[in-house]
Amino acid sequence: MPEIAVLTETELRRVVALELELVDVIEDAFRALAGGEVVMPPILSMDLPMVNGEVDVKTAWIPGFDGFAIKVSPGFFDNPQLGLPSLNGLMILFNAKTGLVDALLLDNGYLTDIRTAAAGAVAARHLAPETVTTAGVIGAGVQARLQLQAAHLVRPFERVLVWARDRDRALACAGDLETALGVAAEAAASPEEVVRGSELVVTTTPSREPLVRPDWLHPGLHITAMGSDQDGKNEIDPTAIAAADLYVADRLSQCGTAGEWQAVLAAGMDGGKTPPELGAVIAGDATGRESGRDVTIVDLTGTGAQDTAIATHALKRARAAGAGSVINT
Amino acid sequence: MPEIAVLTETELRRVVALELELVDVIEDAFRALAGGEVVMPPILSMDLPMVNGEVDVKTAWIPGFDGFAIKVSPGFFDNPQLGLPSLNGLMILFNAKTGLVDALLLDNGYLTDIRTAAAGAVAARHLAPETVTTAGVIGAGVQARLQLQAAHLVRPFERVLVWARDRDRALACAGDLETALGVAAEAAASPEEVVRGSELVVTTTPSREPLVRPDWLHPGLHITAMGSDQDGKNEIDPTAIAAADLYVADRLSQCGTAGEWQAVLAAGMDGGKTPPELGAVIAGDATGRESGRDVTIVDLTGTGAQDTAIATHALKRARAAGAGSVINT
Repeated sequence: MPEIAVLTETELRRVVALELELVDVIEDAFRALAGGEVVMPPILSMDLPMVNGEVDVKTAWIPGFDGFAIKVSPGFFDNPQLGLPSLNGLMILFNAKTGLVDALLLDNGYLTDIRTAAAGAVAARHLAPETVTTAGVIGAGVQARLQLQAAHLVRPFERVLVWARDRDRALACAGDLETALGVAAEAAASPEEVVRGSELVVTTTPSREPLVRPDWLHPGLHITAMGSDQDGKNEIDPTAIAAADLYVADRLSQCGTAGEWQAVLAAGMDGGKTPPELGAVIAGDATGRESGRDVTIVDLTGTGAQDTAIATHALKRARAAGAGSVINT
Repeated sequence: MPEIAVLTETELRRVVALELELVDVIEDAFRALAGGEVVMPPILSMDLPMVNGEVDVKTAWIPGFDGFAIKVSPGFFDNPQLGLPSLNGLMILFNAKTGLVDALLLDNGYLTDIRTAAAGAVAARHLAPETVTTAGVIGAGVQARLQLQAAHLVRPFERVLVWARDRDRALACAGDLETALGVAAEAAASPEEVVRGSELVVTTTPSREPLVRPDWLHPGLHITAMGSDQDGKNEIDPTAIAAADLYVADRLSQCGTAGEWQAVLAAGMDGGKTPPELGAVIAGDATGRESGRDVTIVDLTGTGAQDTAIATHALKRARAAGAGSVINT
C-alpha cells in the first residue's frame, strides 16, 4: 500500500533550517536550471480581487532529483482582520519517475521563505564583493530578516542598515538582526543612506515605484532585488540597472514579466541585450563580477526549481530524523 | 489549531458516487462558469518526455462555493511496467475566503473520473434527444464505462454499442456495461456501426486522427467528444463538426487549444462563428437542441470548475458521514 509522508510546519521547522547546507541545495537547483534539461512551466497565477486574494502555483522537474514539487501559494490579504496570516500554502512532492505523491509538506509558506532567502545567499556568494562590511536591507518584514541572515552565511558582515517606510518596523527589524547575527544594526533615515553605506543591499518590498536611484550606486556594490514578483512591481530604477556593470536574472522569462527586468524593457533600456541567468554564472557559463569595483544587480522572482530542491531536501531530512507522519492510501 | 481533512481514495469512493446528485453538482458548476464571475486560469501543463510523463494542474474559483480546488493530475505512462497505474493525482481544497487548506483529497484520479463522466451526463441531459434507445461508445477504457453509466442516469437507453481497436477490450467493456446497467450491450464492428446505430455517442479515445466521419451523422444524433484534452488530439472530423446543427464547447478557450475545436480552426471551418459554451446552454443564454432531428456535438476538455465543484461536494459528503482523518497543523 503506497505511503505518503506528511510534514506539518512545526515538523518542517525542526528539520530544515536556513543554513549553509540549504544554500548549497538551492545553488544546485540554479546550476541545474542553467543546464537546460529542467522543465519549468510558466507560473499559474490566479487573481481573486473579490476576496482580495491571489494564488500562485509553481513547479519544476529537475534531472537528478528524486522528486518534483508543486507549490501552491495563496495570499489572502484580508486574513489579518480575521487573525490569520495573509500567506499560506503547501508543497506536494511527487516521485520524479512515477508521478506518485511522495509527501505533503504543509509548510504554510515556511519553505518558500527560507528557499527565497537561500537564493539571496547564492546570489551574494557568486556576485557580491569578496568582503562585505555593511549589509543593507530595504523593507522590514520576514524576508528583510531572512535575507540578511542568509547573506551573513556567505558574507559575514559586521554592520546592518535597515530602511522601511515605517520607522518603528525598521527599528524592530534592526533589533532582531542584532540579536540573531550579533552585529551592529541601525535604522537608516533613507534608502539612499542604505545604498550609499552598504556593499551588499537586499530590496524586499512590494513597491510599484522604484526605491533605488542610479546616482546612489557606488563601486563595489551588489544589490539583490527580491521584492518584485508580479506584473507592475518595481524596486530598482531601470536607469540604475542600465548603469550597473552586470544585471543577472534568476529566470529571464519571469523577470521580464514579474521582476525588475519589466521596467527595463518598458523603458526601452535593455540595449538589445539578453542578460545572463544566475545558474549560468554559477556554472561558469556566463561572466560574473569581474572586479571588486563592479556594480552588480541580481533580480530574484522565485523559481519552481528552488521549490523542488527544498522539498526533496526537506523530505530527505525528515526521513533521516524520523519526523512526520504517514498516510496509507 | 487549524485542521485539514484528509480523505483517501477508498474513503472518497465510499462517500461520493456517480449518481444524479453529482450530475446536478457538476451542472451547477457549468452554470456558474456561464455567469462570468468564475476565475479559471489556463491549465498549467508540464510535459516530461524524458520519463514519458505529463502533469496538468487545473483550478477555478466559483462564486458561492465554500472552497476552490487545485487539482494535480500526473500521467506517467511507463508506470504499468512497474505495476502502477499511469494516472494518479490529488485535489487540494482551499477555503474560498482565506486561502487556508481545508482538505486533501488523495483520490488518485477517482474524482476526476467521475466528474468527467458527470459532465457527459450534463451534456446529454441538455443536448441529447429526449428519447435515446441505443447509446454508443468509442473506446473501451474507464471513461467508456463511466460515461455510459452517467448518460444512463439522464437518458435510460436499452441497448449499448461499443467499438474499440482491440475487440477483446470492446467485448469486456460491453460485458461490464451489461452487468452494470442491465441493458443489452454488444461490440460493434466499426465506429461507423456505432454512430449510425445510436442516438447518443460518446467518444473516449486519445486519438490523433478523426474516428467519426461526417457521412455517418444522422437526424437525432448527439455526440459527446471527451477524449481530446491536448494539443494534437482529434476524434471528430472537423467536417462533421461543421455539418452538425450545433457544436457546444465546455470552455471555448480550452477547446480551441486542446479539444475538437482545434481541428476545426486548423481546417478554417469555424465559419467565423463563436460557438456557445455548455454553461450558456444550461443557463438558457444560448440555444440548445431545437428539434428531435438536430445533430448536436459537445466537446469536453475538462474544467477546473468541475474540480472545484466535486471537491467541495466530496468534503461536504465526507463531513456528513464522519469519514476521513484530520491533520492538526
